[in-house]
Amino acid sequence: MTGAAPRRQLPQPSRDELRLTAVLAALSDEIRLAVVRDLVTATEPLPCSAFVLPVTKATMTYHFRVLREAGIIEQREQGNRRMNRLRRADLDARFPGLLDLVNA
Amino acid sequence: MTGAAPRRQLPQPSRDELRLTAVLAALSDEIRLAVVRDLVTATEPLPCSAFVLPVTKATMTYHFRVLREAGIIEQREQGNRRMNRLRRADLDARFPGLLDLVNA
Repeated sequence: MTGAAPRRQLPQPSRDELRLTAVLAALSDEIRLAVVRDLVTATEPLPCSAFVLPVTKATMTYHFRVLREAGIIEQREQGNRRMNRLRRADLDARFPGLLDLVNA
Repeated sequence: MTGAAPRRQLPQPSRDELRLTAVLAALSDEIRLAVVRDLVTATEPLPCSAFVLPVTKATMTYHFRVLREAGIIEQREQGNRRMNRLRRADLDARFPGLLDLVNA
């Protein structure tokens, strides 16, 4: 097999490791809330560059990392892009109603 | 009218002033989550001394202030006690599902 770009998944907590306090802390920021709201409605993983927000690229990288380390998003390296996906099934399983609350 | 102790309500945001990010930040702490969970099931306002948590009194005072300033609880001075009440109606109106999420 050749040709397929490697898609390395960056470290994240498992479903069982998700903690409500960490998830709430990660969501307690307007920029990160905006990212999550975009991902709630996205039908496929989005590159960081898809988000148009009033912060520097370095700051965006930080915010995505906070979301990933809290378990809210999954990030995969795909070529030279980092693709972001909401961990909807994990969040719905552990914290039912959370995404409705964030997206209201 | 004499005899009734004054019950001074401490400063708090109005219902319209509540912000989701501030509320989530206030809830992103195990001690404050424990306080809110106790208040969810309380049938009347509780004094700070009713909460048995592994922190100093000064730290508890701080945590209650964070909850009040975020709009999650109301605090009233009653004699030499500070009584705490969950702002359930305001929270349910602005952030439906939040208290279910916290209390799950």
